[in-house]
Amino acid sequence: MNAPLPDPLLADLRQRETPAALIDALKARFAGRCATALAVREQHGRDESSFTAPPPDAVVFAQSTQDVRDAVALASQYDVPVIAFGAGSSLEGHLLAVQGGISLDMNRMNRVLAINADDLTVTAQPGVTRKQLNEAVKSCGLFFPIDPGADATLGGMCATRASGTNAVRYGTMRDNVLALEIVTASGEGIRTGTRAKKSAAGYDLTRLMIGSEGTLGVITEVTLKLYPLPEAISAAICSFPSIEAAVRTTIEIIQLGVPIARVELIDANTVRMVNVHSKLGLREEPMLLMEFHGSPGGVKEQAELVQELASGHGGQAFEWASTPEERTRLWTARHNAYFAAIQSKPGCRVIATDTCVPISRLADCLLESVAEADASGLAYFLVGHVGDGNFHFGYLIDPAKPEERALAETLNHQLVARALRLEGTCTGEHGIGLHKMDFLLSESGDGAVAMMRTIKRALDPKNILNPGKIFTL
Amino acid sequence: MNAPLPDPLLADLRQRETPAALIDALKARFAGRCATALAVREQHGRDESSFTAPPPDAVVFAQSTQDVRDAVALASQYDVPVIAFGAGSSLEGHLLAVQGGISLDMNRMNRVLAINADDLTVTAQPGVTRKQLNEAVKSCGLFFPIDPGADATLGGMCATRASGTNAVRYGTMRDNVLALEIVTASGEGIRTGTRAKKSAAGYDLTRLMIGSEGTLGVITEVTLKLYPLPEAISAAICSFPSIEAAVRTTIEIIQLGVPIARVELIDANTVRMVNVHSKLGLREEPMLLMEFHGSPGGVKEQAELVQELASGHGGQAFEWASTPEERTRLWTARHNAYFAAIQSKPGCRVIATDTCVPISRLADCLLESVAEADASGLAYFLVGHVGDGNFHFGYLIDPAKPEERALAETLNHQLVARALRLEGTCTGEHGIGLHKMDFLLSESGDGAVAMMRTIKRALDPKNILNPGKIFTL
Repeated sequence: MNAPLPDPLLADLRQRETPAALIDALKARFAGRCATALAVREQHGRDESSFTAPPPDAVVFAQSTQDVRDAVALASQYDVPVIAFGAGSSLEGHLLAVQGGISLDMNRMNRVLAINADDLTVTAQPGVTRKQLNEAVKSCGLFFPIDPGADATLGGMCATRASGTNAVRYGTMRDNVLALEIVTASGEGIRTGTRAKKSAAGYDLTRLMIGSEGTLGVITEVTLKLYPLPEAISAAICSFPSIEAAVRTTIEIIQLGVPIARVELIDANTVRMVNVHSKLGLREEPMLLMEFHGSPGGVKEQAELVQELASGHGGQAFEWASTPEERTRLWTARHNAYFAAIQSKPGCRVIATDTCVPISRLADCLLESVAEADASGLAYFLVGHVGDGNFHFGYLIDPAKPEERALAETLNHQLVARALRLEGTCTGEHGIGLHKMDFLLSESGDGAVAMMRTIKRALDPKNILNPGKIFTL
Repeated sequence: MNAPLPDPLLADLRQRETPAALIDALKARFAGRCATALAVREQHGRDESSFTAPPPDAVVFAQSTQDVRDAVALASQYDVPVIAFGAGSSLEGHLLAVQGGISLDMNRMNRVLAINADDLTVTAQPGVTRKQLNEAVKSCGLFFPIDPGADATLGGMCATRASGTNAVRYGTMRDNVLALEIVTASGEGIRTGTRAKKSAAGYDLTRLMIGSEGTLGVITEVTLKLYPLPEAISAAICSFPSIEAAVRTTIEIIQLGVPIARVELIDANTVRMVNVHSKLGLREEPMLLMEFHGSPGGVKEQAELVQELASGHGGQAFEWASTPEERTRLWTARHNAYFAAIQSKPGCRVIATDTCVPISRLADCLLESVAEADASGLAYFLVGHVGDGNFHFGYLIDPAKPEERALAETLNHQLVARALRLEGTCTGEHGIGLHKMDFLLSESGDGAVAMMRTIKRALDPKNILNPGKIFTL
């Protein structure tokens, strides 16, 4: 049982009809690749958020940019919403057809088009997933570092400005996309950016599209930066007497400019869940999971410095891993945290937070929020890309108990208010979607959101591209 | 004697009148800080480009965001252009009042507002220059790496998406601005971004403003990333038997992922000019100037690897510098190249190119262009941020000889066409301004430029913010 939509969305819900003539036109154009079976529509009408809406009225499976152009042009002709659909792993309701319309499934556009190893770039279709991409470029000695929790598609990762565990060193999608091909609201194809590493040629349309959540264009091709696989990689876990000790260690690592590749926090409570789930036998104390990339000498230097910093805060039980197999074992705790948490409370739903604050504010923001969550009595897990000042509470709610949802939302509101007071953001990497519109207003102010709306109206005057997300018009 | 404006601009020239009532209103509001003396207007009506236009009709010296809001609101009321003015170091005519209007001098807004050393961020007014900023943060052990040739203002650097010699490691203004305060075309103040390191909160208005060349808003405050001063810095110069050898070395450095902080090319011809100008006694051969940042061990490792790569291409006469004084001496050649070149041909003007290509295409792009320039007989200098695939020819033209300007423009066109064929950009860091509008169309295509125009019209419906730049409306 999922939740009703937030208030502002209710007004936008199903104001629009999908005329039968559009469905007929789509079937004429796409034949079997336009599906109207309920099961297919329902599968495209939900994501990993805790909201529900009626499913889209049809699903079109795109195989080419021309398919996308034609589908969007038809939708435009009939004033009907179009929602691009990738892995379906949005946490914020991005994929819900709150105003009806059609879902445009991009998963069959899944070819890696060109690996330019000499330039450290790759061009791919938007339905390629991050794991697929990394498989494809591995033999060239390259990798793409952005790793949201899910095996998301590149198109979806662009649309939400995704990041993940490696962002502390390699940046986010914002920093790693060189060029895009986009289909506009009128069904026209345009290209933004080039394969050059930098450019000052006109407005940064690439960055405008990254994070626009499908509301300004449909991404049909992406060109990304790649990185040489590090000569040496070393991973470590370290236990701390308190969350504060782990966080203080992280802050020092960042402030000293250590080029750490990953530094992830897991709280004791979550370690406990992971131990139950994956039989890891880890010390049930707050833990940092770290990874170092570089030359053998550089990795050793980083590791020694970090170990010294951690020891200064009571860090102990350092466990190191240098082979891929050992690293995988250490990272199991982090990767399984979500599933372990869900299994700890059968039938629960997760309400995930995503605040991100300047690194010096991390301890304040995190410790007060932990105290608040503990006092509430609600079950939760806590993981964090703490090197970026970004962390996630996952409140585990029983969907049959509205008071648990209300409590989780209250905690989330308090956390966001705290993060904004500390000069941070309501969302480090999940996006606004349906869930954070009010937070966006609080964070950016009426004037900035009005500017976003003005851009949306100018580029999508019929409001057909994923309408009702980020803001209501 | 400067040049007439490019054709498309002639249409935009002086279509608009600045009513006396606006000047009166500005004088009433700003008193002595609104100047109409010809000398002041002329000083604000030119930049480092080779174009001229009539000066602005008035200059307002802003001291606060409120000043900017009021000046823009008045200009909006009277439909009159406003051009924000910083260091005046644009190379592309950004500051020319091609449609008349007022110049808004931002240089008195030159306070560093907050150094958050613990977060590696700084917030400053837009009139702060990059050298001033680095002086201000030095005592905290921090620095800001973006270094265009001129001592530009932060506002101007944002507006043109500037970069410089350190971009190969630290990125450009695109990558290093966290947040902005902007005055919109209606005179409203808005804020974009926060001090958090990453965010997925709505459209990336910060990146939309970066590189918009004053056409979408006036920047009144910037929040930037800072970096810890490296524990060790080492610089080196190395001579090569040919430009190709220097470029091939650079390509290998980048492809191997060496985190080099600077790698700059100077051709033999330019070394000769610098020797004459600065009495450096350098070998008059193509030269790479490099800098390595990191721990002592890391710097040593990088330097050894690079020396090995260079030797493989016949690089020799390595000269190393580790103290600040020695480094300054080595970098003199790079810093003085522009002035040395100008002095080599008294009375000349410079037409600077700014192409940037994927690193694997650098040799092709550069070598063909050198051959072409040599064959033309026109004097030039050649320097390059070659680690980014970005380089600058400076064609030295006698302004009394129209055929020299025509020849330089022909060479520039051929170079840009070549760079675009090689999947690069017409401008790595100087921007479009007045000079590259046709190139922007060739590079981005009609559809993308139409999207830029749509955004401009939506955000500045009266076309008062630096009109006639990037594109004509």
